[in-house]
Amino acid sequence: MTPRAGIVVTGTEVLTGRVLDRNGGWVSERLRELGVDHASTLVVGDRDEDMLEALRFMVDRGMSLIVTTGGLGPTEDDRTAEIVGRFQGREMVLDEPTEARIWEILSGLRRRWPNLDEAAIRAANRKQAIVPRGAEILAPVGTAPGLVVPPAEGRSGPTIVVLPGPPRELQEMWPAAVATEGFRAAIAGATTYRHRTLRLFGLPESEIAGTLRAARAEGVDLDRLEITTCLRRGEIEVVTRWEPDADDVYAAFETVVRARHADTLFSDDGRSIDEIVAAELRARKLTVAVAESCTGGLLSGRLTELDGASATFPGGLVVYANEAKTRLAGVDPALIAEHGAVSAQVAEALADGARTQLAAAIGIGVTGIAGPTGGTPEKPVGTVWLSVAGNDGARLTRHVRLPGSRADVRDRSTTVALHLLRRLLAGESD
Amino acid sequence: MTPRAGIVVTGTEVLTGRVLDRNGGWVSERLRELGVDHASTLVVGDRDEDMLEALRFMVDRGMSLIVTTGGLGPTEDDRTAEIVGRFQGREMVLDEPTEARIWEILSGLRRRWPNLDEAAIRAANRKQAIVPRGAEILAPVGTAPGLVVPPAEGRSGPTIVVLPGPPRELQEMWPAAVATEGFRAAIAGATTYRHRTLRLFGLPESEIAGTLRAARAEGVDLDRLEITTCLRRGEIEVVTRWEPDADDVYAAFETVVRARHADTLFSDDGRSIDEIVAAELRARKLTVAVAESCTGGLLSGRLTELDGASATFPGGLVVYANEAKTRLAGVDPALIAEHGAVSAQVAEALADGARTQLAAAIGIGVTGIAGPTGGTPEKPVGTVWLSVAGNDGARLTRHVRLPGSRADVRDRSTTVALHLLRRLLAGESD
Repeated sequence: MTPRAGIVVTGTEVLTGRVLDRNGGWVSERLRELGVDHASTLVVGDRDEDMLEALRFMVDRGMSLIVTTGGLGPTEDDRTAEIVGRFQGREMVLDEPTEARIWEILSGLRRRWPNLDEAAIRAANRKQAIVPRGAEILAPVGTAPGLVVPPAEGRSGPTIVVLPGPPRELQEMWPAAVATEGFRAAIAGATTYRHRTLRLFGLPESEIAGTLRAARAEGVDLDRLEITTCLRRGEIEVVTRWEPDADDVYAAFETVVRARHADTLFSDDGRSIDEIVAAELRARKLTVAVAESCTGGLLSGRLTELDGASATFPGGLVVYANEAKTRLAGVDPALIAEHGAVSAQVAEALADGARTQLAAAIGIGVTGIAGPTGGTPEKPVGTVWLSVAGNDGARLTRHVRLPGSRADVRDRSTTVALHLLRRLLAGESD
Repeated sequence: MTPRAGIVVTGTEVLTGRVLDRNGGWVSERLRELGVDHASTLVVGDRDEDMLEALRFMVDRGMSLIVTTGGLGPTEDDRTAEIVGRFQGREMVLDEPTEARIWEILSGLRRRWPNLDEAAIRAANRKQAIVPRGAEILAPVGTAPGLVVPPAEGRSGPTIVVLPGPPRELQEMWPAAVATEGFRAAIAGATTYRHRTLRLFGLPESEIAGTLRAARAEGVDLDRLEITTCLRRGEIEVVTRWEPDADDVYAAFETVVRARHADTLFSDDGRSIDEIVAAELRARKLTVAVAESCTGGLLSGRLTELDGASATFPGGLVVYANEAKTRLAGVDPALIAEHGAVSAQVAEALADGARTQLAAAIGIGVTGIAGPTGGTPEKPVGTVWLSVAGNDGARLTRHVRLPGSRADVRDRSTTVALHLLRRLLAGESD
């Protein structure tokens, strides 16, 4: 039988959206990779009764493993360790080696802020070292240790894995948690699934619904596949998960998708458009530079997101004001006066200016109206012109009308720019 | 009695983290503003039994209102409307006015992609117009209508508000949902709370723990306040919520915070550092330009995030390669050779170059090692130099060692830069 796990995300700041939860989904994916069925994540604030109810909900659903995130900090509202200990019937005790370890970690902090209240730090340190007796302790990545807490002897129920809230700490601690005896015992009997991600760009989501119907009509037994589709940063992701004996069903499904969407399917190996473009640039020793207006630096930011970006990206120009378009990217003011700053002509001049000013092989120009103000009947909010120009004379210039908020338009524009770049690299030109 | 509400976020893509949930927290805040107690958000995938269990969990906890998000799209895995209808004991029926309305909305899509499969669109359209009989229908913002679904006649239980997954659609639809008869009836008797957010920068979270202990020691009855503290983008947020008759308790608490953290408390009115800096620049008709290396465009991106940025931000230079630092920002190559690209000297030259090249009142230079590679014993990953220079000769230059991933270091650096800018605007100078 597939073991089942539940995730409990704690923290009023997460419940109320001041901090977006990046842990629930991450842990969910890791659990699935381990062959564990994960059906729900419960987000609760820092109230004891709400956390206890969350744990009870998971127990009632027959989970053999519960993973909690957050609530291990030094402040009084961080109560997870104690609540889990109580829930599992275990007494809380000070673990002196852990206290010493945290004190050592805090020495860096104390050097950085020499005027801190030492007694306050001592108290906070001690609090973080009080753990349920008999728990397996995971070494801190930040200052909080993680815990693997089985039920007290003589009790039954799930093992609870207690992890810190900061995503980096949680992720770095995960392998140690998985390696514990308690964790391994809780997921004994798991089988592994296959999964595959297809990414498409340039079609509406309803087309995929049609493709699923077509696949079914052609006799593909979709009930043996777990298919989820979603729109993400303007792209469509089709993620499928299946048991190994349904390999041929998946293959038949993918064949239908490929036949119907050959022109829009751009990734079948999990790689993002960012990774695809970066790999292609690196392989061909090409550099790309940017002159961007409405995206205000976000396209450059995206092109430098991956480590090693310096091999392919020398730099960019953020030309927000019209004067900056002229001053930095050499756009002729007459061109702006004649066609407007948001136009094919200016996008092309920006691409050329970026390429020239930064001595890059390829230049990208982006100019548009991100809103919420600044739209006109002819050029409503969301109108964006983009141009990509190579040093061999190849060029692609397009305009789009993007829906959504200012942030959506800006973010989506960077996606469109990367796909234009991909097409130029694939040999397309106007 | 305070009415209670639960939130059910649906979607395998959210459960597994491919899409971060931006709705649960947003709805939670709106519910709190309405005086509704919101204790938990349950995230489930697109499986009928998991969604039904989620609804049952909320009913068992005595919720008078349940808000669901997601699962209203055109694809087969979007099942929320039907599941909620069944749960409430209501038959599903085609609502013809809604079908016509959606068809009209889709005409834009059909114009944009003229080669689409019309039958597929028709089918998807019809699916989205099938709703529980007797539900109040909320006009679509995208293509999906929202629903307010009370229990079938003769039954008791919570009213369920069904909202679409895309945050923009959900947020735009919210006021209409709140205005429905079903929603108002479900939250009858709600009392309103006060809340206030304090933001601090430049101290560790353990200091706030100490301040809470100090306040308690001074006799402030903290049990009457709901205080949550969290670290967010390198800043500490202290959010407090209280009932109106505890106004004096809150005032006493804030006095303690102000006395202990006068130098690091920068916002007491909910404004972010971005808003504070933008307002100050606008009020004094000052412009700021940027030359950034490790942040790769993200600082410019942040300075253009708010509408109206063109009044204060002419543009920026993304100087990723050393040659770009020289070519675009005029940094003397000898300076880089002597001190290294990550140094006080180069940060200052970048700030001066940005100011000069873009004819701005203030220039900001940022140069650092975002990692994961590129660190050295003297300059480990996370080392960032920043300089802010005004046209009156004022200047602040600092270095920090930021923890975390490449993305953390880049993001955190933009926060540090904005705080340096705020200090310069407040009259500080080295």
